[in-house]
Amino acid sequence: MVQSSIATDFERIFHPDKIAIIGFSKEGIGFGSGILFSLRAIGYSGEIYLVNPKGGTFNGQPIYARIEDIPGGFDLAIIAVPAQAVAEALEACLKKGAAGAEIFSSGFKELGTPEGIALEQEVTRIAAKGLRVIGPNCFGIYCPKSGLTVLPGPDLSRRPGPIAFSSQSGGMAVDFANLGKSMGLGFSKVVSFGNGCDLRETELLRYFGADPQTGIITMYIEGIQDGDAFFAALKQTAARKPVIINKGGLSEAGSRAVQSHTASMGGSRRIWQSILRQANAVQVNDMHEMAQTAMAFALLPPKVYRNITVLGGGGALGVAAADAAEAYGIKIPPFEPELAARIDALLPRPGSSPGNPVDVANPFVAPKTLRQIMRLAAGDERIDLQIFTSLLHHYKNQAKIFGKPVKEITPYVELADDIQAVVAETGKPIAVILSNPKSAPDHLDVVEMFVDARRVFAERGIPVFNHLTEAFKALGHLNIYYERKHP
Amino acid sequence: MVQSSIATDFERIFHPDKIAIIGFSKEGIGFGSGILFSLRAIGYSGEIYLVNPKGGTFNGQPIYARIEDIPGGFDLAIIAVPAQAVAEALEACLKKGAAGAEIFSSGFKELGTPEGIALEQEVTRIAAKGLRVIGPNCFGIYCPKSGLTVLPGPDLSRRPGPIAFSSQSGGMAVDFANLGKSMGLGFSKVVSFGNGCDLRETELLRYFGADPQTGIITMYIEGIQDGDAFFAALKQTAARKPVIINKGGLSEAGSRAVQSHTASMGGSRRIWQSILRQANAVQVNDMHEMAQTAMAFALLPPKVYRNITVLGGGGALGVAAADAAEAYGIKIPPFEPELAARIDALLPRPGSSPGNPVDVANPFVAPKTLRQIMRLAAGDERIDLQIFTSLLHHYKNQAKIFGKPVKEITPYVELADDIQAVVAETGKPIAVILSNPKSAPDHLDVVEMFVDARRVFAERGIPVFNHLTEAFKALGHLNIYYERKHP
Repeated sequence: MVQSSIATDFERIFHPDKIAIIGFSKEGIGFGSGILFSLRAIGYSGEIYLVNPKGGTFNGQPIYARIEDIPGGFDLAIIAVPAQAVAEALEACLKKGAAGAEIFSSGFKELGTPEGIALEQEVTRIAAKGLRVIGPNCFGIYCPKSGLTVLPGPDLSRRPGPIAFSSQSGGMAVDFANLGKSMGLGFSKVVSFGNGCDLRETELLRYFGADPQTGIITMYIEGIQDGDAFFAALKQTAARKPVIINKGGLSEAGSRAVQSHTASMGGSRRIWQSILRQANAVQVNDMHEMAQTAMAFALLPPKVYRNITVLGGGGALGVAAADAAEAYGIKIPPFEPELAARIDALLPRPGSSPGNPVDVANPFVAPKTLRQIMRLAAGDERIDLQIFTSLLHHYKNQAKIFGKPVKEITPYVELADDIQAVVAETGKPIAVILSNPKSAPDHLDVVEMFVDARRVFAERGIPVFNHLTEAFKALGHLNIYYERKHP
Repeated sequence: MVQSSIATDFERIFHPDKIAIIGFSKEGIGFGSGILFSLRAIGYSGEIYLVNPKGGTFNGQPIYARIEDIPGGFDLAIIAVPAQAVAEALEACLKKGAAGAEIFSSGFKELGTPEGIALEQEVTRIAAKGLRVIGPNCFGIYCPKSGLTVLPGPDLSRRPGPIAFSSQSGGMAVDFANLGKSMGLGFSKVVSFGNGCDLRETELLRYFGADPQTGIITMYIEGIQDGDAFFAALKQTAARKPVIINKGGLSEAGSRAVQSHTASMGGSRRIWQSILRQANAVQVNDMHEMAQTAMAFALLPPKVYRNITVLGGGGALGVAAADAAEAYGIKIPPFEPELAARIDALLPRPGSSPGNPVDVANPFVAPKTLRQIMRLAAGDERIDLQIFTSLLHHYKNQAKIFGKPVKEITPYVELADDIQAVVAETGKPIAVILSNPKSAPDHLDVVEMFVDARRVFAERGIPVFNHLTEAFKALGHLNIYYERKHP
């Protein structure tokens, strides 16, 4: 890793007051016009300068023919010129005193050609003079607080949150940011660094570790540049904050795919597993597991969850929960007879079952009854957490019978309020499973209702999973992390 | 298992011309009025008789005070009276010559009380006289061809298909039928048999095995009644048709939950795994894996898929595919240089990669280009199947830029047509990954577009998975089944 001798001004890079888009073409849809559109759409409120040798104006804004023509300086450059022209542009940005540059252009080391490699070395050499480079072959930075966004990120959320993400893959960066938004998760910073010829995983990990805006670090890694430095930083950081890592390319074919994607070396599955384990980093297998695990870390108090309740409609769901729990070393202990009797008195007849799991037997049990049951169940002092398996899709038929919209008839807002209240009263978190088997074209109203229900639960800080197994997998990661952290 | 000496008339049970609803109340929403609503909504076109001691009429239709008052006979009774009144009703149905009865009522063996057990034994005794009982404590039968549906099934599909499902859990039966509908899968018969005091897993397995409408058998099992008979039937049936089994309650807590759900014995995990393996049944862990595996069996030609291609946008997706493939013993062999060069000539520059996986680098590559690439890739004679990873969600930004609806601007119909054409031309199937990270409230248009895209692909017989790992898991099941079947 090339380390600049000048202290990196991350503040100016992540929260730039002034941005220059180098390689802005007003014809067609290129990377330059794409990022302008994205920055405007997300509501970036700083100054944006446009640069193109042809000059002219765009929507009344001047297009500067040369970087030197920009009046005054700028904090961050976004470079979208052909690979051969990048070095010259970068030199000009350096002279202008920019703190950093995102290079969207590809055509560098990832080509595997001597020319591509040489062009990238040149960029690294210029960066070492005191300007940090993100890229090349990347989508840049998304920072909800400052309104900086990645190339395909006009529609990302402006709500900040505790999750940082660094990614060699630009596609993964934007998909993960979108997935987080869908799940109601907030980000501190997302960095797509592509080939990572300058700023990359180790420095970002250290920066996120020290960043007060970041509580949970997530990373998609294809290959690392300096193993020793990375693992030292990882061990130190994971001791303070959860670091969740999705390492791609651990198979033979995956390693080959990594090579042509970001020109990194894959590395052996066994070595990675063992080293991540030693550092107490959390290893996940894909983007979805990473998002769900990050959500669990973000929304659940930092502790080990050993004994839980499972409540909700559907006996088979209780059976499935019990089976899944065992696989992750989590217990669903049966209630004492006295508690079971008190819960039983609240349940509809027949078909219900008060043990733990609690089967309410009927998807239409009123939220206020569920609230009483959850409150009682939390009274069992062994219990660390409750899982509620909802069956909201069944309201579709009620809606049909009563001739009303499903969104109106389904009491998901009351349910979310009641769950939030039980959590506040009992001090024990509740995770909700919102699983929707009804997504055929004539069930779009149900699909919409689930999207809104997820929003309502997320706004109340309640973790929502699509499936039981996802919840247990995330809990399993939490448990291992906190067990090792506080043995 | 109690076996009637009289041959079971499954034809009259699954395709009844006349149904009697015993315990139809016109006040409130009970099981009786619920099933009438469901049968009318799904479009059951046979005769429906209503029975309630109070008599009267409902929407101009007579309500018979006694079963005996129904003019002539009926094929199937749907019984929704209190548990204590079930035996008498069943005797009356028997006298009327009904072929079968679905008993929705609960309050039997699942209570674990001497009274409940005795009531259930009485039902079994009456059934043995020559009327088959489905239930008690069940949701009944869904048969798209005849328009018979389960209690919460007014909105299920009328399109028949090759998948049969038997389930102890009513909730699982209706959720699985809905999930299948969402995925474009068709069913021959779905049976929720609850406590299964008469007709249950073994006989249904034999029946489905012989049923020409059924090509794939799926089962949710909590416990079985006669292990030897079941495994003999399983071995015999799985030799002819894939039998996919989700066994619930294999953990200690799961076994306890099974006990209070359908009063079955759970059984040991190791014994089940070994016995299912011996019978060459496919064991899955949950409803979603079951649906995806059934889809793969339904839509892919019966063979082992050893070498595949992975094509699509996103280098990280190619890496993830390669990693997942290895876990299931599937290979993504690199193309020969000549083929790679021909594919490379079609790819956009830069950022793409022609090897196998093929990274088209850009989510907006035209379907007709993708078609040429897929056609070339299928020309590699080692290849058994192709996986296409779509990135349709990226069109949301294009739609925003061009001010058009995302559904209009996204070429998913062309893509589906082109994929269908390549499959027809090359004789090699293509599975599609439709993964949508954009499901926040302001992305409902993307969510809707994905629902429609899934319909379009399903209508063309193209298997669609939400995630790469789901596709590989399903393929893995197929491979094991066909390897053992045709070693």
